[in-house]
Amino acid sequence: MDLNCDLGESFGAWTMGDDAAMFPLISSANIACGFHAGDGRTMLASCRRAARYGVAVGAHVAYRDLAGFGRRAMDIEPAELAADVLYQLAALAGIARTAGTRVAYVKPHGALYNRIVHDRAQAAAVLEAVRSFDASLPVLGLPGSAVLELAAEAGQPVRREAFVDRGYRPDGTLIPRGEPGALLSDLEQIADRAVGFARGGGVDSLCVHGDTPGAVGMAALVRRRLDAAGIAVRSFV
Amino acid sequence: MDLNCDLGESFGAWTMGDDAAMFPLISSANIACGFHAGDGRTMLASCRRAARYGVAVGAHVAYRDLAGFGRRAMDIEPAELAADVLYQLAALAGIARTAGTRVAYVKPHGALYNRIVHDRAQAAAVLEAVRSFDASLPVLGLPGSAVLELAAEAGQPVRREAFVDRGYRPDGTLIPRGEPGALLSDLEQIADRAVGFARGGGVDSLCVHGDTPGAVGMAALVRRRLDAAGIAVRSFV
Amino acid sequence: MDLNCDLGESFGAWTMGDDAAMFPLISSANIACGFHAGDGRTMLASCRRAARYGVAVGAHVAYRDLAGFGRRAMDIEPAELAADVLYQLAALAGIARTAGTRVAYVKPHGALYNRIVHDRAQAAAVLEAVRSFDASLPVLGLPGSAVLELAAEAGQPVRREAFVDRGYRPDGTLIPRGEPGALLSDLEQIADRAVGFARGGGVDSLCVHGDTPGAVGMAALVRRRLDAAGIAVRSFV
Amino acid sequence: MDLNCDLGESFGAWTMGDDAAMFPLISSANIACGFHAGDGRTMLASCRRAARYGVAVGAHVAYRDLAGFGRRAMDIEPAELAADVLYQLAALAGIARTAGTRVAYVKPHGALYNRIVHDRAQAAAVLEAVRSFDASLPVLGLPGSAVLELAAEAGQPVRREAFVDRGYRPDGTLIPRGEPGALLSDLEQIADRAVGFARGGGVDSLCVHGDTPGAVGMAALVRRRLDAAGIAVRSFV
Repeated sequence: MDLNCDLGESFGAWTMGDDAAMFPLISSANIACGFHAGDGRTMLASCRRAARYGVAVGAHVAYRDLAGFGRRAMDIEPAELAADVLYQLAALAGIARTAGTRVAYVKPHGALYNRIVHDRAQAAAVLEAVRSFDASLPVLGLPGSAVLELAAEAGQPVRREAFVDRGYRPDGTLIPRGEPGALLSDLEQIADRAVGFARGGGVDSLCVHGDTPGAVGMAALVRRRLDAAGIAVRSFV
Repeated sequence: MDLNCDLGESFGAWTMGDDAAMFPLISSANIACGFHAGDGRTMLASCRRAARYGVAVGAHVAYRDLAGFGRRAMDIEPAELAADVLYQLAALAGIARTAGTRVAYVKPHGALYNRIVHDRAQAAAVLEAVRSFDASLPVLGLPGSAVLELAAEAGQPVRREAFVDRGYRPDGTLIPRGEPGALLSDLEQIADRAVGFARGGGVDSLCVHGDTPGAVGMAALVRRRLDAAGIAVRSFV
Repeated sequence: MDLNCDLGESFGAWTMGDDAAMFPLISSANIACGFHAGDGRTMLASCRRAARYGVAVGAHVAYRDLAGFGRRAMDIEPAELAADVLYQLAALAGIARTAGTRVAYVKPHGALYNRIVHDRAQAAAVLEAVRSFDASLPVLGLPGSAVLELAAEAGQPVRREAFVDRGYRPDGTLIPRGEPGALLSDLEQIADRAVGFARGGGVDSLCVHGDTPGAVGMAALVRRRLDAAGIAVRSFV
Repeated sequence: MDLNCDLGESFGAWTMGDDAAMFPLISSANIACGFHAGDGRTMLASCRRAARYGVAVGAHVAYRDLAGFGRRAMDIEPAELAADVLYQLAALAGIARTAGTRVAYVKPHGALYNRIVHDRAQAAAVLEAVRSFDASLPVLGLPGSAVLELAAEAGQPVRREAFVDRGYRPDGTLIPRGEPGALLSDLEQIADRAVGFARGGGVDSLCVHGDTPGAVGMAALVRRRLDAAGIAVRSFV
């Protein structure tokens, strides 16, 4: 089972998350590409860390929105979105290569991630960018989302992920933030669910968050539980 | 003889220069990479144009300075500059490949171009970025500049350019803007000098400006004169 | 009747529109405040021009989106939007005062303008910002829009505008761009409608566009027609 | 004696410093205005805190350089710098007024602060902006700097500050960072020097840093020592 986390989210003088502690725990790092976070130096350092720990690099592409950290949905023309995704993907790919690794998958970030669960035009734009750059690159997303459906229809590889600390409805959709049960906080319950997801077989990756207080502790416990359950943590690529 | 021009300098809703008229006249396009100008869509469109016209693509890397169009020298740490140059170069390279072409050389832009004529630390940072990305990529710059000297010492390929509409001192340095003779305006004289530079043999490329009124007319005349003199205009790559 | 136009939309090295030609024709200038266009120098120059021509200054507040020119709707938290609007309004107000004039009204720009026609949360955020800065400042908007309704309920002054070159439905709403009749191109018809709006009495201001080819010609004709019809063009403030 | 500190340096999702702990300890807050740090919401929250604690608000104006946190000197045209400073000062002034307080002084930030110690053209540009906005606003800077000299010559009020944790040369200039003795780390020594500066009478304000580990502890000790020495900590305005 793959364990993925958003990393490389510092920018200039500002730091976010504890990347040094997180990298050893995971198998895939979603690395910010400069549009919601991440400058050249942060990206290069993140790719070098990924290479050192044998962690797969994902292009964490986003809306161009540093002030909003890519968390604000945007009505952007598909052609513009496609070009912006291509730009970010290309930048990270070149930096990763320089650091001795490569971009192994694409995971849209934040508001873009949520938007292309249902917005087929923006989902298609993201896929067009990925395909034009490298048709063999998998897209990591939410099971049942428009972006994964469109990718599968077009023959693009997809990977499905589950969130270990988010509540799900019986139909498999996430309980929206702000509603009861949206966020789990009991670490034992979270670790149990991680093992359950891994055994359930419906997903290729588990997402642990990196930017919350206690993120490292949660990831470490999830990792230990998976190890103890005999579930190998390794990238899906 | 190569004829190069700064293109792809639009950004979002703002346009600059007449790229459609300029591309057919030149053999090398210095394409903005998003830091002083150029967004994803503009870069993609520029690379497609370059592919269509058989024009070589140069990465026109710059300081991160949209508000100043990269024309303001900046005291930036070398490691940060190297990462910023790498980011821009990687982004354009991926976009160029998608458009069916490739980045064939690197030409620093504006204040960075001028700075690394003499600032060896920043020059070394630019070269480190280029070399880490692709050691075979030539750097296009001013003859006698620190950046070309350092590149030559390190075995990196270099290309030297002359400015057809700038005045030179007897020692080969440019007359600084603002001083008498810094800018030539007589089109015939400019075209004569272009032919002279081409025949002189000291440079690999002639730079024509794209963002001034009359730029297209000047470039067209230079091109016609070179053609008439039997000097083939073609990329140095 | 007031005649308003979006001006001061240059940014750094990029210019947009022909402000020099437009200022003498209008009575109110919606001046960009740095978030979709306009840097400090452009804003200062625009305010000085407004002072020279006796044109009222409007704060053309927008989403923070230089790359999209503020034309992309954004799901932004109301508290964040209110602070962003306050920031822009305050910046322009201080610059206007320095230039010998003052901000006389607020007109949201682009996607924000369209969004608060119906989005009551964002409309309330804009109004909260304006009220906290200066409760006597009128907001200029579309008749029937949520923002004007909320403002009127709260006792904030409002001004209603019509677009001389946009098509309207029988119910008074705009025909969306992209549908037939959305944009008028017949100059005579546009000038006739301007006079009709002015005589109809339902609006306080007519908006002429400044950034399209032919914008100056259209504005000049509208102005001549209003003058010929004996309708004084003057600010509503 | 005034105690000043750089605050409000968060941006979007990124936080910097512990403003909540620092505000009660100081008498003047240099608040970022959006160009090196600080967005609208951060500025508004900072001004509200300043109002609550009776702390004077300073406009911490900077080069436009979010990626470099305003720490990279820039060769900017004076007219452009003046307009950028005016923009920032105006934005913070309007926000401060809305929060029930006012901008009481201007302190240039980072690389701009250091540049105008000796660059008279940029110093004059900063002063022109301040004077055009409010000729009675004091500028806080380094004793002996070009900016304070030019201000004094022009009759603009100035305030001089000392850095409690920086080493000084016998001639009163700072030991450059990177040289031995540039940064003091012994808290007792720092607190002693603070009392010494306060009694020495040569400065109007003491600067404590807010963004280093241990910043709060250092500021708290300095404050206790000044209190114990019977030196009232209060703004110079």
